[in-house]
Amino acid sequence: MGIVLGTNRYGKAEVRLVHVDRSTPRHVVTDVNVTSQLFGDFADTFHTGSNAAVIATDTQKNTVYALARTGGFTTIEEFALRMARHFVDPRYPQVGGARQEIEQYSWDRVDTADGPHDHAFVRAGTETRTVVVTRHGDTETVISGLTDLVVLKSTGSEFHGFPQVEYTSLVETDDRILATSVSARWRHLGTDVDWDASFAAVRATMLDRFAQIHSLSLQQTLYAMGEAVLEAHPGIAEIRFSMPNKHHFLVDLSPWGLDNPNEVWFAADRPYGLIEAAVTRDDVSADDGAWAGIAGFC
Amino acid sequence: MGIVLGTNRYGKAEVRLVHVDRSTPRHVVTDVNVTSQLFGDFADTFHTGSNAAVIATDTQKNTVYALARTGGFTTIEEFALRMARHFVDPRYPQVGGARQEIEQYSWDRVDTADGPHDHAFVRAGTETRTVVVTRHGDTETVISGLTDLVVLKSTGSEFHGFPQVEYTSLVETDDRILATSVSARWRHLGTDVDWDASFAAVRATMLDRFAQIHSLSLQQTLYAMGEAVLEAHPGIAEIRFSMPNKHHFLVDLSPWGLDNPNEVWFAADRPYGLIEAAVTRDDVSADDGAWAGIAGFC
Amino acid sequence: MGIVLGTNRYGKAEVRLVHVDRSTPRHVVTDVNVTSQLFGDFADTFHTGSNAAVIATDTQKNTVYALARTGGFTTIEEFALRMARHFVDPRYPQVGGARQEIEQYSWDRVDTADGPHDHAFVRAGTETRTVVVTRHGDTETVISGLTDLVVLKSTGSEFHGFPQVEYTSLVETDDRILATSVSARWRHLGTDVDWDASFAAVRATMLDRFAQIHSLSLQQTLYAMGEAVLEAHPGIAEIRFSMPNKHHFLVDLSPWGLDNPNEVWFAADRPYGLIEAAVTRDDVSADDGAWAGIAGFC
Amino acid sequence: MGIVLGTNRYGKAEVRLVHVDRSTPRHVVTDVNVTSQLFGDFADTFHTGSNAAVIATDTQKNTVYALARTGGFTTIEEFALRMARHFVDPRYPQVGGARQEIEQYSWDRVDTADGPHDHAFVRAGTETRTVVVTRHGDTETVISGLTDLVVLKSTGSEFHGFPQVEYTSLVETDDRILATSVSARWRHLGTDVDWDASFAAVRATMLDRFAQIHSLSLQQTLYAMGEAVLEAHPGIAEIRFSMPNKHHFLVDLSPWGLDNPNEVWFAADRPYGLIEAAVTRDDVSADDGAWAGIAGFC
Repeated sequence: MGIVLGTNRYGKAEVRLVHVDRSTPRHVVTDVNVTSQLFGDFADTFHTGSNAAVIATDTQKNTVYALARTGGFTTIEEFALRMARHFVDPRYPQVGGARQEIEQYSWDRVDTADGPHDHAFVRAGTETRTVVVTRHGDTETVISGLTDLVVLKSTGSEFHGFPQVEYTSLVETDDRILATSVSARWRHLGTDVDWDASFAAVRATMLDRFAQIHSLSLQQTLYAMGEAVLEAHPGIAEIRFSMPNKHHFLVDLSPWGLDNPNEVWFAADRPYGLIEAAVTRDDVSADDGAWAGIAGFC
Repeated sequence: MGIVLGTNRYGKAEVRLVHVDRSTPRHVVTDVNVTSQLFGDFADTFHTGSNAAVIATDTQKNTVYALARTGGFTTIEEFALRMARHFVDPRYPQVGGARQEIEQYSWDRVDTADGPHDHAFVRAGTETRTVVVTRHGDTETVISGLTDLVVLKSTGSEFHGFPQVEYTSLVETDDRILATSVSARWRHLGTDVDWDASFAAVRATMLDRFAQIHSLSLQQTLYAMGEAVLEAHPGIAEIRFSMPNKHHFLVDLSPWGLDNPNEVWFAADRPYGLIEAAVTRDDVSADDGAWAGIAGFC
Repeated sequence: MGIVLGTNRYGKAEVRLVHVDRSTPRHVVTDVNVTSQLFGDFADTFHTGSNAAVIATDTQKNTVYALARTGGFTTIEEFALRMARHFVDPRYPQVGGARQEIEQYSWDRVDTADGPHDHAFVRAGTETRTVVVTRHGDTETVISGLTDLVVLKSTGSEFHGFPQVEYTSLVETDDRILATSVSARWRHLGTDVDWDASFAAVRATMLDRFAQIHSLSLQQTLYAMGEAVLEAHPGIAEIRFSMPNKHHFLVDLSPWGLDNPNEVWFAADRPYGLIEAAVTRDDVSADDGAWAGIAGFC
Repeated sequence: MGIVLGTNRYGKAEVRLVHVDRSTPRHVVTDVNVTSQLFGDFADTFHTGSNAAVIATDTQKNTVYALARTGGFTTIEEFALRMARHFVDPRYPQVGGARQEIEQYSWDRVDTADGPHDHAFVRAGTETRTVVVTRHGDTETVISGLTDLVVLKSTGSEFHGFPQVEYTSLVETDDRILATSVSARWRHLGTDVDWDASFAAVRATMLDRFAQIHSLSLQQTLYAMGEAVLEAHPGIAEIRFSMPNKHHFLVDLSPWGLDNPNEVWFAADRPYGLIEAAVTRDDVSADDGAWAGIAGFC
């Protein structure tokens, strides 16, 4: 019997990089937050403090900036793969694998009286595009995603038919507000993908499904969104969702002789429902390791 | 010599209201956060705990929801005025004045394969539209605004010519990233305003000026934005800004033989520059009272 | 009629400084966040972008670190005064005044098997000690304070006797939870103060009053806290509070045949009551300028 | 080949409960945040929107409050077990398992002139005590923990001996500030534990180890903390840590002729190092399922 080091991983988190493509006067800005982590044969530093094998987290940070200069920045998927391949390489035999997580914040061009501006931008949307790339030896897994895509339906949502068990008091409804903040992550089967096109298509599919489905439960909505993504994208193995049910409560105005035909709502903060589920193909491997460390999805 | 009650104000903060206009199948959603406060002859509760004059903060909350039902919800300016007029009224002689602060979060319709959806929405942008209405007796002041309008210029910004004083080490630059999160508030001279049109025009003017001006300092950019707003809007008395200088530092890649022609930047969190200033007409009264309580603007 | 620059102020915000006093093996750690701002004759940079008068915000940041080295760090009040005196000085004729705001985070020594450790520390408490020093020419004002001092009484709080007006539905209670997050700021009449002793005494007085008073309203509690501070501290001119009423609602368990004798509560997030008030001596000048820019207190 | 529902879980998140034990005039306050989730045979609601099996999330919320009344509240571990046993029960055949996650916020009694107060409390510390209980059929796993335990050593930390690889520029140091925010979770081998005593002992051991160890890397410190916990607690199977390296950079004051003998530091926000690792007994089963859903630990 003894005490041993278990699973471990280390690196530099939240390296904030803004890349400006100035190859034409019409600049392109890419705004990302990179977390680089390595795993492998690093037990010595845990046991003795010997850092002879440790690629310093500061070096991982420098590598983000250097690779952005040497290879530019197109998509977060491509960049994360490039980072992972840089570190999981024969010159670093101690590195068994790398995990590269990137968030991207979107910007629009400023609309001016003379049209969209060449080099002035305004932050767009609350949502964040994400990727987690894991390279374990020669095996690469890309999980694309987004978080904080906040959506709401002002009608077209019911909730009823649930059992009356101990402590049930909820009243059934055939017309409620349905609101959630979509966090979704999807695992690609390969790496030869047009990442931007794929992301745009998945996002559009999810929004379309959310809007079009008459909802009987948030679970049903979630599954339909996932199913539609998998149907349209044979290169995607599975998609996982974490969706809070952001409750909106109809305000009771009857004490003052007022009706409230689903017009005036209180948007609650906490508690909230929370639905977490995966939609997957039945003929793909699970690959749970690639999901490790993704909060809400592992 | 004695100890006395000074300036005071009380109410209910952050009443979350979502109003759905269902008058046609094409719903309109308005998502706001209302803070209602009253001031006047309320010393008794401070001195003795007697609440005989106190309009309960819970009642102020209820009033938000009731007025949204009885009068609907068009703009935050109109609603804040309606709230203030409800409370500053002869039936409540103890109420000397009211302060109504509202934040509004914007939503777009979801784009579906069949076009913009009637009742499905997606949160738009990171910015918040704001209003603070103060009604003091019969005097009403409306201060419209926005916060968290995050903008960035990838070129067209210089900073040099500052004095070399003790502890100066900053290097002059003729090409830097200029980024800020605009918080702006502007005071109207009256209340007979097309609030939505006015807001849209002021926002567009600010963005246009930010984009178009070749910047020699964030102060210069700020002033030009304010001046343009006042020039275009005779009904606006003054505009105040609080603008952080969100520093982006060019990464030094020379240790590895790499140049960096303004392409790879580190976006810093803290510290940040902070410019706070008002641009005002020279023939209007100051009306500082209306600005009381607006964080960053008083 | 014209458009002119109004009140303005600029500087560097949130300079994070950790100072370690290593004069003995028993280290003393001081952890602060400094915001330095200047005002005066800086119109040129707004109007023309000429920075000839502008003491760069980067220089203000450097000054924080340099003064921490040359003069050490005892209290935030002393350091803020030193910063203000550095900049409001004949060598900088353009500087009319300075505003120095500092937050301090507290640390305890780690308790080990061998007693409190010499150089290992653990963050203590959620509250933040604050100061705002304004030096305008030769006039100095020191406003000490604290934020996020979260307190709760599980009994000894009533709320009743409020008028039944339109939209009132709140039920009177003679036993509720009273909870708030105290933000308080107090203005000293001079600068010859034992700052640490004064702070500790004011904090203790506020806590004692909050605990001991049988509350009939949060307003009454607030006033009693302020009155006690002024009674005990002749050197303090006034004290201002911003206190949210963090509502705890008794859960109705009667649908399941359960009583709830004030034991099971739901702690709500929003909305919350908000009480803002000053308690002041009646024979001191108002000095409102010193309060400018303090969110929630101006 | 088909599309199927994968792993899923649903419930109510962040049910805020404050429990007051009023059995004596010396009240005891327990302040917690409960997230209740169920898994099992719930595919129907995903596929068809039929909720016939769905124990409403609202019911799960009610159960939190009801069980707090019927059984009181001692420790979060006991309460989470009680919640799990309530739902994983023959009367709910559709429930295969439950996951109950609770955060607890600590309060101290207010010190008054008359001693610690019976019913007035002040929030203590920034850290949060946590538990995740999983009951899968009859198998129960308890993972206790804490987050946001922020600690700092002002000396006694070195970092050197790392390899000079591509893009390395970090300078070696034999005296730096070491600061981190400890998040730790430990899995118990059983459920017959004095939970409060166990928690206090583990916390004290971690703090003692952090303080006493001369650190050669944060990894070494982490491992020593974990090893000490396992050595002292035979009932704990494994402990996992997520520890950011909160960098403090020595400020270079040499441009102004000032030295800086490790006294004046800049506390950086981002990026930060991130060390994640488990320390485990070599003769216990892995039980990875119990860690699912714990952000940073799975």
